[in-house]
Amino acid sequence: MLVPDNTLITPDPESGRELALKIARLTIKAIQPSDDMRAALRPGYAGNADSLTAAAHVVAIEFATIAAANNYWR
Amino acid sequence: MLVPDNTLITPDPESGRELALKIARLTIKAIQPSDDMRAALRPGYAGNADSLTAAAHVVAIEFATIAAANNYWR
Amino acid sequence: MLVPDNTLITPDPESGRELALKIARLTIKAIQPSDDMRAALRPGYAGNADSLTAAAHVVAIEFATIAAANNYWR
Amino acid sequence: MLVPDNTLITPDPESGRELALKIARLTIKAIQPSDDMRAALRPGYAGNADSLTAAAHVVAIEFATIAAANNYWR
Amino acid sequence: MLVPDNTLITPDPESGRELALKIARLTIKAIQPSDDMRAALRPGYAGNADSLTAAAHVVAIEFATIAAANNYWR
Amino acid sequence: MLVPDNTLITPDPESGRELALKIARLTIKAIQPSDDMRAALRPGYAGNADSLTAAAHVVAIEFATIAAANNYWR
Repeated sequence: MLVPDNTLITPDPESGRELALKIARLTIKAIQPSDDMRAALRPGYAGNADSLTAAAHVVAIEFATIAAANNYWR
Repeated sequence: MLVPDNTLITPDPESGRELALKIARLTIKAIQPSDDMRAALRPGYAGNADSLTAAAHVVAIEFATIAAANNYWR
Repeated sequence: MLVPDNTLITPDPESGRELALKIARLTIKAIQPSDDMRAALRPGYAGNADSLTAAAHVVAIEFATIAAANNYWR
Repeated sequence: MLVPDNTLITPDPESGRELALKIARLTIKAIQPSDDMRAALRPGYAGNADSLTAAAHVVAIEFATIAAANNYWR
Repeated sequence: MLVPDNTLITPDPESGRELALKIARLTIKAIQPSDDMRAALRPGYAGNADSLTAAAHVVAIEFATIAAANNYWR
Repeated sequence: MLVPDNTLITPDPESGRELALKIARLTIKAIQPSDDMRAALRPGYAGNADSLTAAAHVVAIEFATIAAANNYWR
């Protein structure tokens, strides 16, 4: 599974943001399917400011797509 | 919480920019929930020009989404 | 082949996401056509958090294009 | 202040580009408020080609938003 | 020459993707016109996963523009 | 000067691409105004594949804005 519930439509921005985080994580999982490997990588990654910024960058792009899909929840 | 007040709509560009900064920070917090860890990372990050540029990059992308949501406050 | 089935139109977000992954991989293959070389690069890449984030970044951009092509499957 | 004059609307592309540069710099200032620290970082940053490219990247994204806000000054 | 045939319009997604690759390469050539230098750089670049991902990233952005120009070949 | 002729409108994609290259270079010049410094940085930068890719990335983003401004020269 790459897109939870197979939809980009969410009730509000908060849930859209949660979806952006999930989609980004599911992509990483698709590329590196080993749960053990991903768990082993997490401490180094979560303790590095530039790694966190790079992850936030990806979430920002996923969110841009989801926000457009929902007409920005106007 | 990932999106303050659960909306992308703001009264003007200045508040839209503030929201972009907040959303970017809340994403970092969602990925690294430890307040201590984030505080420990801050000096190295805030004292590195490339780290600052990378952070400004993420804010620029969040702002693009928020600006579109608000029809660019025209 | 760079775009499977020569279309960006997919039935739903899940298949759109799969297409984004495929297109990203086919681009890498176009730039580095050697199967052996790509296979040799994979372990180092799949075991590095920043490399995985960079790959997810590319998938996010491909997906943005595919999602727009499909009117976000609204 | 994050957005000078609190508007994305400018009379022409040149002033829109100037605004993009200002907005990018104001974001850096918001993240690193110390004038001394930013001044100390500048020589290393302005003397590194990759740092300059990364900065130009951010300006390009800010400008894309400003250009859209102004209907590309058509 | 920076844009082959001086158009972004292509008959289908496959040819649009080929154009994205060509445009990205022509930009590199415009910045580094020496055929010898580009040839010398290629092995190190094509044998580095992060370099390949960065190149695929650029192609993704060029393709986004070309796809929009072609109304996504709907 | 940041935008030559103070317009994003160009007669065709080729000239639009040239404008994208010029705008990117003018931004670098605005951040690092010293001709000597920029000249000194050029050899290292033009002889590094990742630096070239990063520069092509910025051009791709500038071109996306210019292409949209010109309705993709359809």
